[in-house]
Amino acid sequence: MNKVLAQGEVEIEIPFHDIDSMGIAWHGHYVKYLELARTAMLDGIDYDVQAMRDSGYAWPVIELHVRYAQPLKYRQKIRVVAELVEVEHRMKVNYRVFDIASGRRLTRAHTVQVALELDSGEMLFASPPALTRRVAAGAGD
Amino acid sequence: MNKVLAQGEVEIEIPFHDIDSMGIAWHGHYVKYLELARTAMLDGIDYDVQAMRDSGYAWPVIELHVRYAQPLKYRQKIRVVAELVEVEHRMKVNYRVFDIASGRRLTRAHTVQVALELDSGEMLFASPPALTRRVAAGAGD
Amino acid sequence: MNKVLAQGEVEIEIPFHDIDSMGIAWHGHYVKYLELARTAMLDGIDYDVQAMRDSGYAWPVIELHVRYAQPLKYRQKIRVVAELVEVEHRMKVNYRVFDIASGRRLTRAHTVQVALELDSGEMLFASPPALTRRVAAGAGD
Amino acid sequence: MNKVLAQGEVEIEIPFHDIDSMGIAWHGHYVKYLELARTAMLDGIDYDVQAMRDSGYAWPVIELHVRYAQPLKYRQKIRVVAELVEVEHRMKVNYRVFDIASGRRLTRAHTVQVALELDSGEMLFASPPALTRRVAAGAGD
Repeated sequence: MNKVLAQGEVEIEIPFHDIDSMGIAWHGHYVKYLELARTAMLDGIDYDVQAMRDSGYAWPVIELHVRYAQPLKYRQKIRVVAELVEVEHRMKVNYRVFDIASGRRLTRAHTVQVALELDSGEMLFASPPALTRRVAAGAGD
Repeated sequence: MNKVLAQGEVEIEIPFHDIDSMGIAWHGHYVKYLELARTAMLDGIDYDVQAMRDSGYAWPVIELHVRYAQPLKYRQKIRVVAELVEVEHRMKVNYRVFDIASGRRLTRAHTVQVALELDSGEMLFASPPALTRRVAAGAGD
Repeated sequence: MNKVLAQGEVEIEIPFHDIDSMGIAWHGHYVKYLELARTAMLDGIDYDVQAMRDSGYAWPVIELHVRYAQPLKYRQKIRVVAELVEVEHRMKVNYRVFDIASGRRLTRAHTVQVALELDSGEMLFASPPALTRRVAAGAGD
Repeated sequence: MNKVLAQGEVEIEIPFHDIDSMGIAWHGHYVKYLELARTAMLDGIDYDVQAMRDSGYAWPVIELHVRYAQPLKYRQKIRVVAELVEVEHRMKVNYRVFDIASGRRLTRAHTVQVALELDSGEMLFASPPALTRRVAAGAGD
């Protein structure tokens, strides 16, 4: 079991333009839903994309994994929860998507990101203090 | 009737992820199709987005107009033709979308872009030579 | 000046995945923002996409016009207001996009939709009671 | 090592509207690239989305995994190769994304889909002959 280092969540209503011809949200659109929850999580440790850039790093996603258990329908209301579970060498975030009405879990996912130093263009094999310091600060909450 | 200053076109097969729950391409996706044809047209005058940036300008779209006459179906093959029709004060491009199988015209559209000087952040009310020179050179073809 | 027959609005925070390489929301993404406001407006007269289908009609968009006055930045908060201004022969909706912080209007747009009878596949040149009755009922509010 | 039961590929030029503010293709857009290659692969065994539906099944994606090794830039030309490697109980497809200019592999991915019987709405735990027969026929090529 991973210790949760930071957490964030969003509520989303599935829009018409995400529904495919089978009447469910096209599986690729989930990547947006995950990103919105991750953004909420990163807000909690003051490290959104702009702050990342200001700190001298980008954090490209190097791995994405989604396990879809139940489809999403038009106008279904979901809660997406993002949990930061690793920061030492990479930023790993776990996600769960819940149906708000029933509380049922519909989808699980995770992403992995690594620090890319903007000046040098180099990937880092240990996360910079710009991240770990923020997580340590948040952990004291 | 506008004189055509430059022309470009692309062929596209409508992908599954652009089809909505009514079984037709969602109207917002056409903006991508137009952009692909505009890119082909701009290639013909050596002025793609990277060349724009190198020339010191961005060209934000300030107006978009689409008139949809016939819907697009899954895997339908279309030809999108872009024609540059104004360059003096702004870049106006007209588009026509054709069904390849029948030759029938399905959609008309136009976009208007203006030059934004990257250094100053100022909009220009006359197009810079970076564009007009290229069009003049191309017109000699 | 058009009489406003129904109105709806949404608040949106511009997400990372809508930002292009120039640092602004790509112009094609606005079509989603307009649709969300139109959905809110249609909710007010009980006529969302599912209700449309149940009533025997689809309402394809036959015209889209957007006039962009100011770009949108990452995480900018906007309010999108949709107003139904015509229903007799077609459904015309006007949109205004405002920056929430300043109240400034950033973009104007309109869409036109027509009724398509699902059984026959025929376009109607007069809007069916399924729409006009709802608008009349709402107008009595 | 999985035996490859069917194969398909597409060439794609990364469009402007897929590039994010870091100057690379946003990671969520890859799902479209994979789908285009899978469609090409399914064409080879006469089983595109329309044929799936005609056969009485949908094939929702229940798992998506992408491992990004190198970012994609604006106008980079890529080849996406899809290989069908499992059909007995589910449809598993492996993907590799190559830079066309250098031949370098940039990304690996896989998806898993299962048969959903349209009449009953039931998931099947063994793939229907509609798929396995086509694969067997193709394997004789």
